Amino acid sequence: MAAENRPLSFSSDYMEGAHPAILEALVETNLLRSPGYGLDPYSDSAKEKIRLAADAADAEVFFLVGGTQTNALVIKSLLRSYEGVIAPETGHISVHEAGAIEMGGHKVLAVPHKLGKIAAEDIKKVLTAFRLDGNRDHMVKPGMVYISQPTEYGTLYSLEELTAISNLCREADIPLYVDGARMAYGLASPSNDVTLPDLARLADAFYIGGTKCGALFGEALVMRGRAKVPGFFSIIKQNGALLAKGRLLGLQFDTLFTDGLYFDVGRSAIAHAQKLQSALQDAGFRLFFESPTNQIFVILENRTLDALSEEVEMGFWETYDANHTVMRFATSWATTEEDIARLIALLPRFAPKKQL
Amino acid sequence: MAAENRPLSFSSDYMEGAHPAILEALVETNLLRSPGYGLDPYSDSAKEKIRLAADAADAEVFFLVGGTQTNALVIKSLLRSYEGVIAPETGHISVHEAGAIEMGGHKVLAVPHKLGKIAAEDIKKVLTAFRLDGNRDHMVKPGMVYISQPTEYGTLYSLEELTAISNLCREADIPLYVDGARMAYGLASPSNDVTLPDLARLADAFYIGGTKCGALFGEALVMRGRAKVPGFFSIIKQNGALLAKGRLLGLQFDTLFTDGLYFDVGRSAIAHAQKLQSALQDAGFRLFFESPTNQIFVILENRTLDALSEEVEMGFWETYDANHTVMRFATSWATTEEDIARLIALLPRFAPKKQL
Amino acid sequence: MAAENRPLSFSSDYMEGAHPAILEALVETNLLRSPGYGLDPYSDSAKEKIRLAADAADAEVFFLVGGTQTNALVIKSLLRSYEGVIAPETGHISVHEAGAIEMGGHKVLAVPHKLGKIAAEDIKKVLTAFRLDGNRDHMVKPGMVYISQPTEYGTLYSLEELTAISNLCREADIPLYVDGARMAYGLASPSNDVTLPDLARLADAFYIGGTKCGALFGEALVMRGRAKVPGFFSIIKQNGALLAKGRLLGLQFDTLFTDGLYFDVGRSAIAHAQKLQSALQDAGFRLFFESPTNQIFVILENRTLDALSEEVEMGFWETYDANHTVMRFATSWATTEEDIARLIALLPRFAPKKQL
Amino acid sequence: MAAENRPLSFSSDYMEGAHPAILEALVETNLLRSPGYGLDPYSDSAKEKIRLAADAADAEVFFLVGGTQTNALVIKSLLRSYEGVIAPETGHISVHEAGAIEMGGHKVLAVPHKLGKIAAEDIKKVLTAFRLDGNRDHMVKPGMVYISQPTEYGTLYSLEELTAISNLCREADIPLYVDGARMAYGLASPSNDVTLPDLARLADAFYIGGTKCGALFGEALVMRGRAKVPGFFSIIKQNGALLAKGRLLGLQFDTLFTDGLYFDVGRSAIAHAQKLQSALQDAGFRLFFESPTNQIFVILENRTLDALSEEVEMGFWETYDANHTVMRFATSWATTEEDIARLIALLPRFAPKKQL
Repeated sequence: MAAENRPLSFSSDYMEGAHPAILEALVETNLLRSPGYGLDPYSDSAKEKIRLAADAADAEVFFLVGGTQTNALVIKSLLRSYEGVIAPETGHISVHEAGAIEMGGHKVLAVPHKLGKIAAEDIKKVLTAFRLDGNRDHMVKPGMVYISQPTEYGTLYSLEELTAISNLCREADIPLYVDGARMAYGLASPSNDVTLPDLARLADAFYIGGTKCGALFGEALVMRGRAKVPGFFSIIKQNGALLAKGRLLGLQFDTLFTDGLYFDVGRSAIAHAQKLQSALQDAGFRLFFESPTNQIFVILENRTLDALSEEVEMGFWETYDANHTVMRFATSWATTEEDIARLIALLPRFAPKKQL
Repeated sequence: MAAENRPLSFSSDYMEGAHPAILEALVETNLLRSPGYGLDPYSDSAKEKIRLAADAADAEVFFLVGGTQTNALVIKSLLRSYEGVIAPETGHISVHEAGAIEMGGHKVLAVPHKLGKIAAEDIKKVLTAFRLDGNRDHMVKPGMVYISQPTEYGTLYSLEELTAISNLCREADIPLYVDGARMAYGLASPSNDVTLPDLARLADAFYIGGTKCGALFGEALVMRGRAKVPGFFSIIKQNGALLAKGRLLGLQFDTLFTDGLYFDVGRSAIAHAQKLQSALQDAGFRLFFESPTNQIFVILENRTLDALSEEVEMGFWETYDANHTVMRFATSWATTEEDIARLIALLPRFAPKKQL
Repeated sequence: MAAENRPLSFSSDYMEGAHPAILEALVETNLLRSPGYGLDPYSDSAKEKIRLAADAADAEVFFLVGGTQTNALVIKSLLRSYEGVIAPETGHISVHEAGAIEMGGHKVLAVPHKLGKIAAEDIKKVLTAFRLDGNRDHMVKPGMVYISQPTEYGTLYSLEELTAISNLCREADIPLYVDGARMAYGLASPSNDVTLPDLARLADAFYIGGTKCGALFGEALVMRGRAKVPGFFSIIKQNGALLAKGRLLGLQFDTLFTDGLYFDVGRSAIAHAQKLQSALQDAGFRLFFESPTNQIFVILENRTLDALSEEVEMGFWETYDANHTVMRFATSWATTEEDIARLIALLPRFAPKKQL
Repeated sequence: MAAENRPLSFSSDYMEGAHPAILEALVETNLLRSPGYGLDPYSDSAKEKIRLAADAADAEVFFLVGGTQTNALVIKSLLRSYEGVIAPETGHISVHEAGAIEMGGHKVLAVPHKLGKIAAEDIKKVLTAFRLDGNRDHMVKPGMVYISQPTEYGTLYSLEELTAISNLCREADIPLYVDGARMAYGLASPSNDVTLPDLARLADAFYIGGTKCGALFGEALVMRGRAKVPGFFSIIKQNGALLAKGRLLGLQFDTLFTDGLYFDVGRSAIAHAQKLQSALQDAGFRLFFESPTNQIFVILENRTLDALSEEVEMGFWETYDANHTVMRFATSWATTEEDIARLIALLPRFAPKKQL
């Protein structure tokens, strides 16, 4: 189907396959033989490139298939049985993993959020309350902190905010883990001031998302210092998370971290998203909030929503009030100039009437 | 690299990528958008084709990424907490899943094998011993049976043997689960008399392996009757086994079950394997046993092994005695006429001296 | 030590050993031999008496050692892996079991409380929100409801409130489980209108607390209908919760349910508690709330607290404000007339000045 | 019932309640108040006495309710997720804990036994095979060794045997854990040369059994060095294994370790058992093997078995052949001179005819 005729869709950032460069690499190497389980030269090369990009020569890098899998493995590997993980109440592990963390044996200690983010002081409250409780030995001990960058709302922790959280974790002697499912879109945001080396310095573990950022599938988990887990290869295997043809993951990340493709993927999506966000504002639409990354949230009157839905697929975010709904437009590596132009051209027809 | 110059390798059947038809399908559909998590039309179509091929209209079909993952999910979903799974002592779940079944909470009740197979009467012994034991409420209850077809040794259960095991399971009111990681190679074997519909009729659950049979990755799990598990989608998600772009799995199996590709893949590998096995025998090599499928086992003198290893990659199987080693040649969908011809041409040079 | 000289203590209701009748029964039967694991005549007799007292001839009764153990076993036996348990945010399983429920694999879905109680409508909100969520298959499914009677605050659900919750659970087809660690004190409260037969009729499972109600240790778990779990004996064993000398539990509950001892134990503690509560009010102390059971909560100025603590042990409950603290007095089967008289005699000295 | 008229029973060593001294201590202290959860002076005193008796000033001591509970907690606390525990195939954890170890996530790596014992060289084989296996990262790693002293057969490891196993564990850097459910009977055996200090020196963790050795219930777990687990109190709580009135355990072990009661309990049972064993031999009965502890095993013709069962309760051990059965006589702290005399008096009537 010619791309220009396909239905307009901004419903999510994992609707298509892979960035063409990745697909090409898969095709080219298809008949080469390589050892299984990630012990292949593509995986080695990709790990080295990621260590370089994160300025973390000592880091251990593992490639996994998906985000929930990665979160579950990291959290159960880093916690003692009676410890829980502090997370935003909107965090992916808090709501959308069907209880993966609890199945691993651990409580999610949910903290109130602001647009997906939690503050160092709110984390501190949990840590202090636990420390001072006379019954603390009968309670779940806060044993690590989970956040995402960008968050589920597409918002970003600033370097200052992340540093505050990191310092707090180090004082409390607990690891900080960052879920980077959409990291490419965070790194490419004009308002972002947290680089990969910052992240590697401030977090004990984090993952660089592939699935939503140009890969067919896959996430690159980076672990440092206290977050290096003995026997993690066997843990991956034991959890059914070891890909037989590990080369498939290595090759994808090797491609993403060659000539800055991962950053290009992010920049392209962000440019499209920001253009769309401006156009929405110019057309008089009300934003839910001003988003720095690839997810744009707009408050639509329900009648407008119905009409606009005929022309373009969006994602439902949440009910705003009886007459309004928050909808999400997500761009990705696969969004084209043309997609955006077509969408922007539609907007005036659906824009709220200007109040004179 | 031109295929004809590449090093000869028969070390395993998952060294390459995917069958070209699968790769082509992935490339063609790369920019099409589809809903995530397997709710796409390719997955629907593939499920329907599998139900048809297995003559199991009522079956539930799920696509998963790998074999250990599939085994672990099925077993923990079908057993009560205090039940264990009967399996050959050489079964994949018994030895090579790093404790995945135990992590799911269950004991593997290992039964002695003959070339990877277990007999109905040996299973019966376990069931009877449990039933008669005065302390059985303090013991792990045998709650299901796990076998593989073909087995890890490449051997096959005959229809009669499988029927006996199935009948026993039904009398005992426990499910029978068949691991089909290499099923294409079993189905295509000239000595095989167990069809997919037989399997669907005799087993309660089984999976049709993709990873080793032409797919990039993926297994198709089929569940019937008592083995249908409420909420299995959520179980997949909770275990980190839900692929975001589920389409990738659906598309691969849709391709494999179009125009009999899955069976072609098997037939080609089997033809190559049987040709090799005959050539080995003709050249005077001693087989470990006569294999009906795509894994050929030969007993090599250790000096021969060293010399032959310079020319071709094989897989180590087991030590035979102080001077001999059992080595495995595995063919696959990716094995070519040329590979086999080159290998056969080598044999006379390494063949044991005929005893006159 | 003569009882009259011992320090005054109301810090909790499990500081002493067992009701003398229980100890006597243990001494008398000490050298009798009986089969282990609860298969003894005392256990049978106790089960029968409990079925009778609860008017639940079909119920299964199990004796366990402690409350956390009982909660954990019931919850993990009744839930599917991806289900969670709705509970008050102050419930014992929510805060004081060190993550036992999560270790069993399940999320506690905490609901806001009023003095330890949750309302049917708040439970309904959770059920409805889940049912309507488009992503519900990615979320933890609410699979049962946990409440306690009396609650951790010593408050009681009325028959009307309990019926509303029970109806809701039946509509939603999920079990209702009631933690009755202090049930004797609830049953004996003048404001209670929920009998044991009511509880057995409205809940699917509940336990009758022994540890805090006159036994040395032990809880009697009652399960009906959908809450009867096949192989629960083996589940108890597997969880290390099977007492070798099960007779010890059977005998204690047989004694408690002979001649109404369990109810006497409750009545005595309640009479003492209510007398104390009246005396506190008469003396001008401010109650945190008016308690219907054996735990009396008073708001003390911190200076008063310090002074009073020299004379009597109380339990810390929570900080009220910068200058005040909520303290708890707990009575039990072991509280004597004399204890109460001595405490009441102390009160005037510490009472707040009347505001004229 | 007067003891002299009670039916003769040697079916097990946990049929009665507690040694009178323990019951007396419980009665005496019944109304004393003490803090819960083992934070009481009796527990402190008992721990100190056990450290002294084991010459292990640095040891941590915990009191638990039962053996399966203790085994499960120790094993899951000491192993990484992908590790298993080496144990005799007849070990309690291998067969009679209903899968408690697997529920904790771990494989029991069963090793062939001789009368319940395993040899250092057999353990070594498992360790070596794992170390040399090219797929070891896909396999369960042997992570600790479990044995029992005395074993389930009542046999004893000699100091030399235990030292060999301990050395092996230290070389392999894995902990050795000893299940001492019947330890009193081992320590008191004339053929025993392993003292409590030896055990504390050679094992990393072990427990001193109370339930079968004079207590109402309870086991004393001793952990040293690498086997000290951070947060073990919370682990106990999380597993539902924390007794509210921990004093009950402390008091019992305090009594058992005062004036050598624990050793007296053992000596008395052993004296009775050895007397019985000699009498059996003298009367011409065939022993299954010569037992050093409190369990005596005799091979009975099935007709003799039926007849003798009318007079005395024994425990079924195993089928010997079509016409013979191995039966067990167990003595305990509760066995009296009179019991033994009555049993011995019976023997001639049932003894096999001497072959002339």
